[in-house]
Amino acid sequence: MSFTAFIFDVVSDTIYPARITVENGIFTEVTPISVNSLTDVDVKGLMVPGFIDSHIHIESSMISPAQFAKIAVRHGTTAVVCDPHEIANVLGIEGVEAMIENAKQVPFNFYFAAPSCVPATPFETSGAVLDSSDIEYLIKKDEIVALGEMMNFPGVINGDEEVLRKLEIARQYGKPIDGHAPGLSNQDLDKYLAQGISTDHECSTVTEALEKKMKGMKIMVRDGSSAMDMEGLFDIDEGQREIENPESLGPLYKDIFERRIYSPLFDFIVSDDKHPSDLIEGHLNLSVRKAVDLGIDVLKAINMVTINPAYHYCLNCGAIVEGAQADYIIVDSIYDCNVLATYIGGECVYDGENVLFDVPDFNAKNTINASKKTASDFDIHYDGEECEVNVIECSDGDLLTKKATAKLKVKNGVVQSDIVQDVLKIAVVERYGGNTISNGFIKGFCLRKGAIASSVAHDSHNIIVVGYNSEMMAQAVNQVIDDHGGISVVSEDFTDSLPLPIAGLMSNEDVYDVAEKLSELHDLTAALGCTLKSPFMTMAFMALLVIPSIKISDKGLFDGDEFEFMDVIIN
Amino acid sequence: MSFTAFIFDVVSDTIYPARITVENGIFTEVTPISVNSLTDVDVKGLMVPGFIDSHIHIESSMISPAQFAKIAVRHGTTAVVCDPHEIANVLGIEGVEAMIENAKQVPFNFYFAAPSCVPATPFETSGAVLDSSDIEYLIKKDEIVALGEMMNFPGVINGDEEVLRKLEIARQYGKPIDGHAPGLSNQDLDKYLAQGISTDHECSTVTEALEKKMKGMKIMVRDGSSAMDMEGLFDIDEGQREIENPESLGPLYKDIFERRIYSPLFDFIVSDDKHPSDLIEGHLNLSVRKAVDLGIDVLKAINMVTINPAYHYCLNCGAIVEGAQADYIIVDSIYDCNVLATYIGGECVYDGENVLFDVPDFNAKNTINASKKTASDFDIHYDGEECEVNVIECSDGDLLTKKATAKLKVKNGVVQSDIVQDVLKIAVVERYGGNTISNGFIKGFCLRKGAIASSVAHDSHNIIVVGYNSEMMAQAVNQVIDDHGGISVVSEDFTDSLPLPIAGLMSNEDVYDVAEKLSELHDLTAALGCTLKSPFMTMAFMALLVIPSIKISDKGLFDGDEFEFMDVIIN
Repeated sequence: MSFTAFIFDVVSDTIYPARITVENGIFTEVTPISVNSLTDVDVKGLMVPGFIDSHIHIESSMISPAQFAKIAVRHGTTAVVCDPHEIANVLGIEGVEAMIENAKQVPFNFYFAAPSCVPATPFETSGAVLDSSDIEYLIKKDEIVALGEMMNFPGVINGDEEVLRKLEIARQYGKPIDGHAPGLSNQDLDKYLAQGISTDHECSTVTEALEKKMKGMKIMVRDGSSAMDMEGLFDIDEGQREIENPESLGPLYKDIFERRIYSPLFDFIVSDDKHPSDLIEGHLNLSVRKAVDLGIDVLKAINMVTINPAYHYCLNCGAIVEGAQADYIIVDSIYDCNVLATYIGGECVYDGENVLFDVPDFNAKNTINASKKTASDFDIHYDGEECEVNVIECSDGDLLTKKATAKLKVKNGVVQSDIVQDVLKIAVVERYGGNTISNGFIKGFCLRKGAIASSVAHDSHNIIVVGYNSEMMAQAVNQVIDDHGGISVVSEDFTDSLPLPIAGLMSNEDVYDVAEKLSELHDLTAALGCTLKSPFMTMAFMALLVIPSIKISDKGLFDGDEFEFMDVIIN
Repeated sequence: MSFTAFIFDVVSDTIYPARITVENGIFTEVTPISVNSLTDVDVKGLMVPGFIDSHIHIESSMISPAQFAKIAVRHGTTAVVCDPHEIANVLGIEGVEAMIENAKQVPFNFYFAAPSCVPATPFETSGAVLDSSDIEYLIKKDEIVALGEMMNFPGVINGDEEVLRKLEIARQYGKPIDGHAPGLSNQDLDKYLAQGISTDHECSTVTEALEKKMKGMKIMVRDGSSAMDMEGLFDIDEGQREIENPESLGPLYKDIFERRIYSPLFDFIVSDDKHPSDLIEGHLNLSVRKAVDLGIDVLKAINMVTINPAYHYCLNCGAIVEGAQADYIIVDSIYDCNVLATYIGGECVYDGENVLFDVPDFNAKNTINASKKTASDFDIHYDGEECEVNVIECSDGDLLTKKATAKLKVKNGVVQSDIVQDVLKIAVVERYGGNTISNGFIKGFCLRKGAIASSVAHDSHNIIVVGYNSEMMAQAVNQVIDDHGGISVVSEDFTDSLPLPIAGLMSNEDVYDVAEKLSELHDLTAALGCTLKSPFMTMAFMALLVIPSIKISDKGLFDGDEFEFMDVIIN
């Protein structure tokens, strides 16, 4: 196949008309041409390499990799480097391999990172452990292009043997190591970097990004559904207030802080997490536009989602050059990035209207190994009329929580929730066959009745439930068990759910159906009195022990500051 | 030699610390590193590839190539692609070879373009003709990397055989062909491009640049001493007014005109001509800053003076990559581009204070082959008391002139100049042994007495002189002859001159001395009443026949609209 088009050459950062030949999915000719008349160019619009999201957890989109591909190509994405960290916590190597298998069924470039931190902590029951020998097994695979984000930075800094071994394996096999080090700086950062960790997507201020950049990290600007750091990264005034010693920040300080020249600071634009409703709206195409509005040159922004990730992860795509895989998109304008068509390996996969490939189901076994619950499983007993308890105080969409306390009434020996104080019951139900339950209290959801439950509960993905009373909680959890995983909302008046039968995390339905059902569940939760905009996401973070200050696992209430369990009942 | 530094990697457009090793003038190691502490980096400041001016006529700086190198390295320039078009008009192949020879004496990367249009027209006497066989002789040389700007676009469009032969030779030897096509568009531009002409530095509006870009040309933004197109190229409002058919302008139209995204439009930043006083102030370092202020991303601007020209002209420099020549500079900030040091082939040539190499003289023979003149040589005779004459009307620094007429008094049979009407005498004295003189009249200089003369007179560089009367003109011309070329200012009260003994175009003195002398001559010319800011440059353009409307050569007064000679005296 040969044709002429105006191409954006991300190597020379220029745009010119070229004759393109694609054979067996590869660009075999890219020759600049002089055109005799503009109307002679075959392709209407501008030909740009397909976009690459270099850090994403597909599980957050609640759809299978194949379904993800189907929506992503509409937005010009042709490749992702995805870290199947969530499914690995549920199914271990088997989960990672199942993701790879499903991904292979569709014409889309899925590259994978080997999840480096499974489980996240020893204070919870996860479905699997990936030790260094598992990492070695995974990292040998062609589909695995990196070691996934090393969230256990205390382990790196303190020289945890198993952590260092994983890092060593990645280096040994020549695969880059992704970082995850929010707020890390100075000597601790130096120790972290000395292990060869090369990217970071957790910077939330320009100063943090600058220190990491100047120490050799590649900086990922994150524009995702849960964490949106973009504006903060461009906030010079805020950044400047934090700086104690400008000279230590190296030669970019002056350009960035005095001239507001941002482009040298950033290397990639990534999403990290993309929720179904956001994914319908757009992907990196929207992020590029946002980056340009914030002060990044449009060519540089495109580089951040094409050649830069391709170069870093050694992917044979991301540029319209001879020898590269023919992954490209046609856009109306480089800024607007409205996608007129998407090609992968030279084949049209999206023609501006329809996606031209079929999506096979992800063959998922039931991973919810938990017996049905009764109301009494969620009772917290106390001998007295009133008791003081520790309470998790959460806020909308925030990973951080505050420690609170409350005095609650006791009825028939069971501590009661209190809608006047907005203290509800929360529980984590172990789903990996152990059938344990830990109960506690939470403030912030404002449910007046009913309960919500979910098998999406970072990072171990046990079943988490928040409710007004034990009956409703049992009903919500049982619905999730019946669905083989998912999200449920129940009350005396109704029961509804989004089944997520793939590891309790993902659906085989398409993103439009999943987003619609999720929206219905949000509406039902609001009808129960909940004032949070993202009740399911907020609930999912309540089991994420590594982020302070107070969380809950299937093993008990957890003090994230002291990194130890704490009692629910104070006296 | 090994060291660590923060480098600007123009391939990936990112900045990171790296270990650099230079052996035998070549980068043999460029390894990204994580630094354990910022203070450990050896180089203070940012390491950037040395800048490349991809289109310059060194003769306009009035100094030898070696002297040019000495000032250029102070501004971070380490390479030029220079077109020795001026000296070729005087000395032909011998001149080009002498430039190459002098250039080799200093540690600086001089690349040359073979002058394509010598002489510019058959309506003047030049010192040399470069026909297609001469071009073939030159283009085979390693030092010659391109065919110089093809100014004879009518010749290309009309299929002049000798012109086409020169273009064919360049293609045959695989050397790029530079363009020069002000205002060329539509079918004429298509014909021009069909010959493989690949660059243009003559765009003065964004619309002109966009059409050329969309037809495959690489666009040079010119920021020189004579022509400063930069602001015009970024003037969207002006550009938009000119556009008849936006759709015909291809996929960049929307980005540029609706979003003011300029960076995809431009490929190089060049100076074309740099006068001595401007060259003291700065070179591409200043142009980069200006481009950023006008809306180009700083990384893209740096690309335009490093990797883009290196890639286009196949130069082994312009990037800090293994295998490339170790030409680099240390700057304080990528925007300010204050040069702290300059290295060529790994050797320090400028340490922030001193230039660390010696400058040998350009061995120049006398090229002024003209007999001494007497006043009567400049007399224009008329039999009568008053006569009407055609007059060149010029304006400051403008290549374009207007046709004017004037009635002048005649005294003793000789037509007199008239300071009330500001009609002075102008003459071109043939310097190549023919000893002819052509006389005429000019308006715009406002000299009240005395005369100025120069052997810099585009493109044939005969001696041009403007004066109040014949005596002074003879004296000014004779001073130029005595100096073996140069610029002179004379009056009854004083005689002063800047000798330019290298082909009558350049000096062996350094740029500071040349600029100082030139400034003195400007002051003296002003003292004679001249109101032009650039009297010598303006005078030099009066012999440039290819730019309308009325010019003068050694063969007579010339009608640039009709492309034929015209009479001085109307009746």
